[in-house]
Amino acid sequence: MKKKALIVLAPGFEETEAIVPMDALRRSEIDVTIAGLGGQMVTGAHGVTVKADVVFADYKDIPDAVVFPGGMPGAENLASSTKVKELIAKMDSEGRIIAAICASPALVLAPTGILKGRTATCYPGLEKNFSSDVKVTKDKVVQDGNIITSRGPATAFPFGLKIAENLVGKAKAQMVAEQMLYEK
Amino acid sequence: MKKKALIVLAPGFEETEAIVPMDALRRSEIDVTIAGLGGQMVTGAHGVTVKADVVFADYKDIPDAVVFPGGMPGAENLASSTKVKELIAKMDSEGRIIAAICASPALVLAPTGILKGRTATCYPGLEKNFSSDVKVTKDKVVQDGNIITSRGPATAFPFGLKIAENLVGKAKAQMVAEQMLYEK
Repeated sequence: MKKKALIVLAPGFEETEAIVPMDALRRSEIDVTIAGLGGQMVTGAHGVTVKADVVFADYKDIPDAVVFPGGMPGAENLASSTKVKELIAKMDSEGRIIAAICASPALVLAPTGILKGRTATCYPGLEKNFSSDVKVTKDKVVQDGNIITSRGPATAFPFGLKIAENLVGKAKAQMVAEQMLYEK
Repeated sequence: MKKKALIVLAPGFEETEAIVPMDALRRSEIDVTIAGLGGQMVTGAHGVTVKADVVFADYKDIPDAVVFPGGMPGAENLASSTKVKELIAKMDSEGRIIAAICASPALVLAPTGILKGRTATCYPGLEKNFSSDVKVTKDKVVQDGNIITSRGPATAFPFGLKIAENLVGKAKAQMVAEQMLYEK
């Protein structure tokens, strides 16, 4: 059975940070659902409107991985959603992959408390949103247990590929990296 | 007055190759129009549906730069459009920027003849579509006069930034590269 990933788009999402991981995950033959927070048509931070596969409120599954793009006010909109918070808590309790990039590690994950005692990264300048017991690095992608964090638009490639690697293995993710012409 | 760029999306366009250049160009304060070939709702090669700003048939302007993403059958759909061919001929005659990535240098630009005597690149394996008087390289991005070509999804960053550099200058493009955390 195919692994399942969920990408949650809120109004003001960063387009590159949503589309590049989607591309890497679908090329990895992962069953990706794009869910729209607040509706099926969602407009990103740079004015691109994407038609989501489902409205987030109607999504009842628990995926193998959830992906939170950054972007403003996208990350703030994700952070204020009760359903997002509940999904993060549920997935963390089951050890499922929770992936966030750019503003989202700081604004969406940090307030839930799941980063306590963990290593993480985020968009430069937003580190102050982490509590003092989070170990912050400047790596492009950080994985600590089931939590994957990354920095910004140009790190969306290694971010998406790291999520893929967790769901379908290193060999498949490496094949997709080559197909996309990604070089570390 | 703002410089104008046009990104043409045909059904089956490669999502990353459309969205990353859009992101780099709009961050560079270029006036970007996304035009949909065949309709305003266009679905990419990996199933993402984007709502274009305009239907391509209704676009009457001559932009400072036109961008052709790759993807299959996106590139084939672009190649079979008379209006795409007319726009390329018109823009080349005026020395305006024509940018194509992945399958599009080989399938969209090459048949029009504008690459004759020029240096270009494309997705690995598609070089055979160039006539013998095109000098093919494996560089991530190649600019020869007004024509910019690039290789695939992961080269969409330097591709988008090179287009931006031509329209708004090196300093501004470098600022956007830093904002997007892009490192060469």
